Amino acid sequence: MKDTVHSRRQFLQKAALGSALATGTVSLPVWTNPELEFPDTLPEWMRVPGDEFSNYGQPSAHEQGIIRWISANPAAPGNGVSWTPLHALQGTITPNGLHYERHHNGVPQINPDQHTLLIDGLVDKPLSFDLKSLMRYPMVSRTCFIECGGNSNSGWRSNPIQSKAGYAHGLVSNAEWTGIPLKLLLEEACIKPSAKWVIAEGADAAALNISIPLEKLLDDALLALYQNGERIRPENGYPMRLVLPGWEGILNVKWLRQLRLTDAPIMSRDETSQYTELLPDGKARQFTFINEAKSLITSPSLGMMLPDNPGIYQITGLAWSGRGKISRVEVSADGGDSWLDAELQGPVLDKAFTRFNLPWHWQGEYAILQSRATDETGYVQPTREALIENRGKHGFYHYNAIVSWEITEDGDINHVYGF
Amino acid sequence: MKDTVHSRRQFLQKAALGSALATGTVSLPVWTNPELEFPDTLPEWMRVPGDEFSNYGQPSAHEQGIIRWISANPAAPGNGVSWTPLHALQGTITPNGLHYERHHNGVPQINPDQHTLLIDGLVDKPLSFDLKSLMRYPMVSRTCFIECGGNSNSGWRSNPIQSKAGYAHGLVSNAEWTGIPLKLLLEEACIKPSAKWVIAEGADAAALNISIPLEKLLDDALLALYQNGERIRPENGYPMRLVLPGWEGILNVKWLRQLRLTDAPIMSRDETSQYTELLPDGKARQFTFINEAKSLITSPSLGMMLPDNPGIYQITGLAWSGRGKISRVEVSADGGDSWLDAELQGPVLDKAFTRFNLPWHWQGEYAILQSRATDETGYVQPTREALIENRGKHGFYHYNAIVSWEITEDGDINHVYGF
Repeated sequence: MKDTVHSRRQFLQKAALGSALATGTVSLPVWTNPELEFPDTLPEWMRVPGDEFSNYGQPSAHEQGIIRWISANPAAPGNGVSWTPLHALQGTITPNGLHYERHHNGVPQINPDQHTLLIDGLVDKPLSFDLKSLMRYPMVSRTCFIECGGNSNSGWRSNPIQSKAGYAHGLVSNAEWTGIPLKLLLEEACIKPSAKWVIAEGADAAALNISIPLEKLLDDALLALYQNGERIRPENGYPMRLVLPGWEGILNVKWLRQLRLTDAPIMSRDETSQYTELLPDGKARQFTFINEAKSLITSPSLGMMLPDNPGIYQITGLAWSGRGKISRVEVSADGGDSWLDAELQGPVLDKAFTRFNLPWHWQGEYAILQSRATDETGYVQPTREALIENRGKHGFYHYNAIVSWEITEDGDINHVYGF
Repeated sequence: MKDTVHSRRQFLQKAALGSALATGTVSLPVWTNPELEFPDTLPEWMRVPGDEFSNYGQPSAHEQGIIRWISANPAAPGNGVSWTPLHALQGTITPNGLHYERHHNGVPQINPDQHTLLIDGLVDKPLSFDLKSLMRYPMVSRTCFIECGGNSNSGWRSNPIQSKAGYAHGLVSNAEWTGIPLKLLLEEACIKPSAKWVIAEGADAAALNISIPLEKLLDDALLALYQNGERIRPENGYPMRLVLPGWEGILNVKWLRQLRLTDAPIMSRDETSQYTELLPDGKARQFTFINEAKSLITSPSLGMMLPDNPGIYQITGLAWSGRGKISRVEVSADGGDSWLDAELQGPVLDKAFTRFNLPWHWQGEYAILQSRATDETGYVQPTREALIENRGKHGFYHYNAIVSWEITEDGDINHVYGF
């Protein structure tokens, strides 16, 4: 890998591409129909009236392969994950049908009329809210990603997993969430000065509970009721979930039924035996809430192929950081020897997916494509080598190293470890 | 209506509301469960494992009433519209299943492998593109609304229609569209200097065609392939549609199969006998492409009810303009005698839905709620009176007057004409 030579000339800056397209100085493949006229007969679907209107639409039957990929425990099928097919999506919004899932004991079928949220513990005025009462509170929207702490954890394996981009890194999705700033509800309950933590519990059959610093709930946390405009989906917490922008998925408790204010964390199963990180010295890191900056080239990526004709390809992908806005994404075609800035698609939002794009003139050579994100705090996404040096070889959570796609001379794409 | 007296004190500015909630100086209804403890038995859904994972999710069964409302021609069921239930949605994104529909002869079931886009007419190099070739071009995303020219046209009737907000004004939706800037494809075809218009044709059984100024296609037009992240839905033009930000729906041609460059408009059915506006002097206005600034209070609105206890309600709604960003939304509770600025939810995007919010302390009195949008060009949404004075009583398209919701002392909500 290291001895292949690549230069920045492989990449076409936006201006150069525009001019190349206009003047023909770069031989952009033009897939011209030799006839350049429509066939004599109209296609079948123009000769008969089309389908009728629908109350709630669905994707085309031709897109049935674009699905969440399910990986569940055969003995307990409600325990596992399903992955967002990031490699097949574009833009930044994850449509609701494809938002990733992580359940510990399945998706509860909650009757919203019988669901309440209780705020109690270290408060002067314990409060209980039903849906109808919550609808009287001010709501705000914010677009942000939610990422499972276990996303991309196949990266800890000795050999690179040969899964499509979304099916290795798609335990992250991005949506416009709308709900009530939790600060309003907590302050109405009159928080006692001794309260420092909040134990959040979900109304699923796992009764999943976890400890969250009160400070975060008073900052930008939402009690989300809507996801991309409509009521939140069952698998995303219907009728209500916590949304903690930038903090790992498990803290964004779904089917939220209780917030109990305490002076200390509860040391629940999911913050002790799970969702902690074994370090090189044998100690475990706990309460690592924030998803650090990360990026992923979604196209070209494994499972696609560059046709055998060299030419211009659009490198595109996603970057995100739990600490704020993405400030820069660099792309390399030579395994990290040289880098060029990709274009960031605006508006660049805080703690949200940012799409990056960079045209690439592939000349049929061997290449290793990588992307490297930097966030507004200056944090730079690490190489796999650096991540392992820092965190050891036996990690499981919070893997955010640079991902490398190998392009062979034939245009095949494989996952490799760049370092 | 006119003799009721209302003052600005009815509205609570954001700061005041926050402090009221924290100190209890305003008697916010607190819907406290008298027990304040969970019942002895867990709800049914916590006692059995939940549902398994799904490849593509759907809304909760409890939300089956949140649908597009279909209004089609019984004799030609593919001709008509379906309305987005704006009154039941929150935030700014319209989920794909609920994006409004307007079809002239149904939804064609297109095989994407057999669909091509032809660019011909006044170009030096006619071009034909299939899906595979289009995937090689640079894409951009933009969030914008699309609004049917006939949206809200019940406003021309003599008596106010008693339909829910979305079912009278929901031929408008807002999505993140991703696709190829049309400028790139048109310039690759080498436009002849004599080309001034483009005739766009769809691959539906209506073979809908319409004339668009070339200038717009070289500005911000997209050949959209993705809608809120996933491939565009069949009823929204699968596999590709024109998106012309801010221009009326019919020009955003779905199932796009041809762009023919010409020196003059084609005078098609849908730009002569339809989608024109009869003016008071008997002449018709043609080629009115832009959706002017408009707003709508989505809650409270017809079909909801204010409970019989007065208190704080959140007024919320949507505003949009085909000429740019929304700069201001004012709200009145007294039929337009006094106005207060609502808070605009950021980020405020160009030619996209902007949500506005204003808390309102309803004291049980008769009220008429209205919203009035101003866009960045300074254009102010007109009263119905002003619109009719300017455009006459026999219009059908481009109705954008202020909408008035009457609140009775009982908390019932009706649609009224404010003027």
